[in-house]
Amino acid sequence: MIKKSQEGLTVKKDEDFSEWYSQIIEKAKITDLRYNVKGFIVIRPWGARIMEEMYDLYEKALQKKDHQPTFFPAVIPEKNFKKEASHLKGFTPEVFWLSKIKGEDRLALRPTSETAMYQMYAFWIRSHRDLPLKIYQRAQVFRYETKATRPLIRGREFYWIEAHDCFATKEEAEQQVQEDIQTTEEVMHQKFGVPFLPMKRPQWDKFAGAEYTVGSDVLMPDGKLIQQPSTHLLGQNFSKAFDVKFKDENGKEQFVWQTCYGPAISRMLASVISTHGDDYGLILPFSISPVQLIIIPIFNKENKEKILSESEKIKERLNFTGIKSEIDASEKRPGEKYYEWELKGVPFRLEIGEKELNEKQLTLFIRDIRKKQKISLKALENLKEYGRDFDKRLIKKADQLIKERIIDCKTKKELKKIIDDKKIARANFCSVDEKGEICAEYIEKEINAEVRGTRADKKERPKGNCIICGKSAKEVVYIGKSY
Amino acid sequence: MIKKSQEGLTVKKDEDFSEWYSQIIEKAKITDLRYNVKGFIVIRPWGARIMEEMYDLYEKALQKKDHQPTFFPAVIPEKNFKKEASHLKGFTPEVFWLSKIKGEDRLALRPTSETAMYQMYAFWIRSHRDLPLKIYQRAQVFRYETKATRPLIRGREFYWIEAHDCFATKEEAEQQVQEDIQTTEEVMHQKFGVPFLPMKRPQWDKFAGAEYTVGSDVLMPDGKLIQQPSTHLLGQNFSKAFDVKFKDENGKEQFVWQTCYGPAISRMLASVISTHGDDYGLILPFSISPVQLIIIPIFNKENKEKILSESEKIKERLNFTGIKSEIDASEKRPGEKYYEWELKGVPFRLEIGEKELNEKQLTLFIRDIRKKQKISLKALENLKEYGRDFDKRLIKKADQLIKERIIDCKTKKELKKIIDDKKIARANFCSVDEKGEICAEYIEKEINAEVRGTRADKKERPKGNCIICGKSAKEVVYIGKSY
Repeated sequence: MIKKSQEGLTVKKDEDFSEWYSQIIEKAKITDLRYNVKGFIVIRPWGARIMEEMYDLYEKALQKKDHQPTFFPAVIPEKNFKKEASHLKGFTPEVFWLSKIKGEDRLALRPTSETAMYQMYAFWIRSHRDLPLKIYQRAQVFRYETKATRPLIRGREFYWIEAHDCFATKEEAEQQVQEDIQTTEEVMHQKFGVPFLPMKRPQWDKFAGAEYTVGSDVLMPDGKLIQQPSTHLLGQNFSKAFDVKFKDENGKEQFVWQTCYGPAISRMLASVISTHGDDYGLILPFSISPVQLIIIPIFNKENKEKILSESEKIKERLNFTGIKSEIDASEKRPGEKYYEWELKGVPFRLEIGEKELNEKQLTLFIRDIRKKQKISLKALENLKEYGRDFDKRLIKKADQLIKERIIDCKTKKELKKIIDDKKIARANFCSVDEKGEICAEYIEKEINAEVRGTRADKKERPKGNCIICGKSAKEVVYIGKSY
Repeated sequence: MIKKSQEGLTVKKDEDFSEWYSQIIEKAKITDLRYNVKGFIVIRPWGARIMEEMYDLYEKALQKKDHQPTFFPAVIPEKNFKKEASHLKGFTPEVFWLSKIKGEDRLALRPTSETAMYQMYAFWIRSHRDLPLKIYQRAQVFRYETKATRPLIRGREFYWIEAHDCFATKEEAEQQVQEDIQTTEEVMHQKFGVPFLPMKRPQWDKFAGAEYTVGSDVLMPDGKLIQQPSTHLLGQNFSKAFDVKFKDENGKEQFVWQTCYGPAISRMLASVISTHGDDYGLILPFSISPVQLIIIPIFNKENKEKILSESEKIKERLNFTGIKSEIDASEKRPGEKYYEWELKGVPFRLEIGEKELNEKQLTLFIRDIRKKQKISLKALENLKEYGRDFDKRLIKKADQLIKERIIDCKTKKELKKIIDDKKIARANFCSVDEKGEICAEYIEKEINAEVRGTRADKKERPKGNCIICGKSAKEVVYIGKSY
């Protein structure tokens, strides 16, 4: 609970990231953790507004690539789970079940929607003309986590989008996996400012029911990796289980090839907060801040009306040009307001007082660099350009950070040092098939790190031998600690 | 299941509304009822896109009136329900429970979120400066319906918005009830084209835990009324149960006054479909149609490229001016396309062929009046005005229909005839307090109709005696059959 005397952050991000994170999500009013069910949290208005912006950009990007929205039920009959064996095995321990209703099948709260959606696809797809089928839904999903939960990072309920696509050929499905990686790049990296490593997971770490999985690994300030949107080549595993077939151009029946893609908006919010925030609070990218410019009118009793009316005019003009701006007209002192909106991470603050109006030079505060500059009313119209520069700076800084943290590594000893230094190792590795699992287990036990996979966006060729077993290396893998 | 040979509607709306409704939601691809859990349905892309437009308008209207979005968990501990006695009694039979987890409180899937939200309000509200608190969420809710379910109308899962507000005084709370009625008017009536009677419900028919309830009664084509957004004056019932207090300006602790408001988007979609649709399919208001104008290019092998490129130019220009337009470039015959987009209810269709391009006169088909007219490229820029006229016609027609169906009524015999004629009776009535319940029960038993309440937007004064018991009438009530 927040003590009145500790409204600001009391720790520095690079000294105690975990505590910094716990404080910032509460103090910037993103979440409230006092809800009385373990692993379930409340998203407060500021958090909800940011998530809505993130949803909006993500859904638009998916729609642009011909995905259509749908809404599927939040409950799934037990019998559906039983249709795909490895999916059943992978998800059953994590399922919240509803109390059985007499005469009806036992129902699960969806942990993910493959087994809800694909039975309907079997009705909808008849012919090659019905393909590709590209469908998504924005939804909450529920997982009975046995690991410790962390707000927005791992909860028993989270907010995501799930896209489930069907194709006539494996090639098209594999192209979709690449398209999904590209969508992550366009939205999570370019809009949310969060860089990632597209990692093709080792076989022992793929999604339950997939042929292979590509996860987007994002670096947290504590040096650990967190999996953001993942995309799965499901192949024909599910289409065979759910009988999703089409007649090809020769009239022959075939099973469809499937992919699914799951960007979790609430978890990406955790990465936005962690990647950009500083010791003064959040820093939100211009492209997703619900308020891009906050106007702070500085007034006394005499000039209050005039200052507020001028502020209103400026706000109207900005909003007309598509800038999301608001006025903080509350009775707090300007200093308090500055402080609060910095904590909330709003990119720009405009200070408007008597002096500023007379001089026709307003004061613009820029959140990330924490600098004030004079700006004319005319120049304010270019705020979108300022916003683009703002986001470019955030991306550049975040890119630099992850780049610096990836270290090439030749020996076990080097690997241990890199991991202890909270960095990510790039190393030669024997195999990411089942054969490599022994070496991966060694790394997990001895070095307390994970083989995260190989690059999914490009082929990296190993030179030399596996750093663990010394056999000829077939892969270049990335190794790090993870959430 | 839809047979290939019956793709169109096979019944007329005014001959068999129930069958017409069942057919249209499937054939216009709004829903799919083949999901294998009773009372749970799939919303298909066309339905989901319409609902997104409806959500968008509703959320904007609420935000304009200072409501802030939030996300609360979908599960609520049993103990929270027990805090407000009549709420517990009213909702317990309808709750889906989760299987109990050892050592944790039993959890309900939310049927509505009062008992989830107000415990948090107790943390958030301290002082009169924290009021009013106006919060909403878009959410799915779950009710174990024992009555027969009907797609979009009554399901075990539905899609709504719930706004929960707190005030310092009862007067402000009552003003909020009026504001909510006004929001229903601005959005459901003016944007969705669905007129309603704001009915203050009799005491025996109020929301579980409320002081009073105002429901929005909408007329269905079969003469029955359906309750659309309702708003409840909760008074201090819940604030006392959940200890939601504030210090007033004199430093005295007081319980807050509360309201809640619940526009169900999926149910309103049922009214949009039922109110405007005709024997050719849906008719969507211009303001909520995901596609406002569909472009049908008419081409042969020779001119395909040219026609499509001209269509693309027109689409780009229209979209630039804020018109949602799409091109149907599929290989179907133009006739098939006309038919399909009429079924889907798109307001305008633009036919572009060689002849049209040469003459610079395109053909515009207007869905509600089913008329074609010539339109120049230049005039197309006024399509928004056409759209406004389109919506005005829909509203006028719907208004006329409900107006004609309300009949003043003096005797039991007249009442019976009005109800048998599928109309709504306006009648003098003894009382809407507990005292009137006997007369209401008589109407339910003998005439198979319900006393829906008194006008909440204006005071109607009775002249004469109760049509049932003959005692002096205190109220003018509306009586009808209902869903």
